[in-house]
Amino acid sequence: MGGMAGGAHEHRLRVRYAETDQMGIAHHAAYVIYLEEARTRMLADRGLPYGELEERGFGLVLRRVELRYLSPARFDEELVIRTQVERVGGASIALAYEIRSATSEAPLVTARTELVCVRIRDGGRAPAALPDDFRALLSALSERT
Amino acid sequence: MGGMAGGAHEHRLRVRYAETDQMGIAHHAAYVIYLEEARTRMLADRGLPYGELEERGFGLVLRRVELRYLSPARFDEELVIRTQVERVGGASIALAYEIRSATSEAPLVTARTELVCVRIRDGGRAPAALPDDFRALLSALSERT
Amino acid sequence: MGGMAGGAHEHRLRVRYAETDQMGIAHHAAYVIYLEEARTRMLADRGLPYGELEERGFGLVLRRVELRYLSPARFDEELVIRTQVERVGGASIALAYEIRSATSEAPLVTARTELVCVRIRDGGRAPAALPDDFRALLSALSERT
Amino acid sequence: MGGMAGGAHEHRLRVRYAETDQMGIAHHAAYVIYLEEARTRMLADRGLPYGELEERGFGLVLRRVELRYLSPARFDEELVIRTQVERVGGASIALAYEIRSATSEAPLVTARTELVCVRIRDGGRAPAALPDDFRALLSALSERT
Repeated sequence: MGGMAGGAHEHRLRVRYAETDQMGIAHHAAYVIYLEEARTRMLADRGLPYGELEERGFGLVLRRVELRYLSPARFDEELVIRTQVERVGGASIALAYEIRSATSEAPLVTARTELVCVRIRDGGRAPAALPDDFRALLSALSERT
Repeated sequence: MGGMAGGAHEHRLRVRYAETDQMGIAHHAAYVIYLEEARTRMLADRGLPYGELEERGFGLVLRRVELRYLSPARFDEELVIRTQVERVGGASIALAYEIRSATSEAPLVTARTELVCVRIRDGGRAPAALPDDFRALLSALSERT
Repeated sequence: MGGMAGGAHEHRLRVRYAETDQMGIAHHAAYVIYLEEARTRMLADRGLPYGELEERGFGLVLRRVELRYLSPARFDEELVIRTQVERVGGASIALAYEIRSATSEAPLVTARTELVCVRIRDGGRAPAALPDDFRALLSALSERT
Repeated sequence: MGGMAGGAHEHRLRVRYAETDQMGIAHHAAYVIYLEEARTRMLADRGLPYGELEERGFGLVLRRVELRYLSPARFDEELVIRTQVERVGGASIALAYEIRSATSEAPLVTARTELVCVRIRDGGRAPAALPDDFRALLSALSERT
């Protein structure tokens, strides 16, 4: 379901029926969850599952998301989500995404997210530097693209 | 948005656009969340917000849910969810629900849920007796209906 | 992601982060959508995609769903959903499901759904007999199990 | 649940349990749906329910959404969503949103959406000019803010 293509990570999924709306297309909020699934798989495929990050007491929280909707997706359509590490800061990362149908090159949705690293402690979440191994991995991904 | 009618609690909400599907009706999974919102409001309206229960280290987890779909709901339709305490056990409760349109008496969906009380500790959840005040309140609601 | 095992169909998926709740487990409503994804894939894997059914003017609507929650699933856990055709009527079908972790045989959730065939026409949905090819396929699946 | 304050529309809702995630906060995708609910109520409160627009053969589809997450919301927290008409074009509108807790003035999330008017016909959606009454109403809202 996942792979790397020229530095970018690719993840595939299908639009669920529950994700369609009465206009007969995938509801726009579904894509926000597709982005999350894509970056989850990117991290796992690179050997640093997000779940492990949380077990070590860190989290990545969304600071900003932007999506541009170019063309709709349909029920059961297979989508390819291409995730690219754009920028790795001391405590944040920026990712860019392109979502297309598996049967076409034209993007349906393009998106960007900015995530901030936090330290989870006593129920609170304080900004924190990215753990070294995590930053190294993301930086390597970033350079390749 | 909430109230008591003959022992049962009533909660009102509207079907969100994101909750419709390409058949042009509220997707069946949305009702499971409507039930949860209805019982959340019932507890809060009776003076025992569920959030406080969790702060005290307890939780209510779903053991069983059953829904019967009689007639569909539409986008933006106002629904009335009537929640009734059916049975209060030592560590569990059973609730019955009836969902109808605000403009009609005919039920659209009927449902039942069984919830079990758990003690949340060290990331685990062990079955636990319902806290006394909680059981007393639920029993009182049950007798009235 | 799918396959047949002894008559039952198996589908695999992973718990999304958005599907977890503050108890740290997959929220109970997510499973209702997992069941739908599993039966969608079962139909597609057997050569009768649900989308085609709708294009032919038919739909399958949920009349009843029941879930029993035995044990929770976690973020990113791979789940196996085993779908079995229990009964094929003239205008309805009953399916049984078992959801387990990919790394264990113990079921986390068991479920049953009853679906009714409808004819979609002029925005309405009238009960209708299952199309012949569809019933034949489902009956064959039912007998094998 | 809704009202106008200095030209902007205000809508109130509560964070559902199903909308929390294992970080113990409202999941970021939930806000995209909150925005939709807020603009649905704004239109209905101003006398032009979105459902009527679709019945007349028009739709508003999202072309772009951007959210900035400043501070998290918690389960059952009452949120106030303030929606402002920023710009009304011939076939599109831009809305700005501010989401805050009902008990604080500090925004938790700020957002912008761009929506395009489409003509729904034969299952397709072609860009179309905003219906006159709709544009007039939105323009009036825009000028007041």
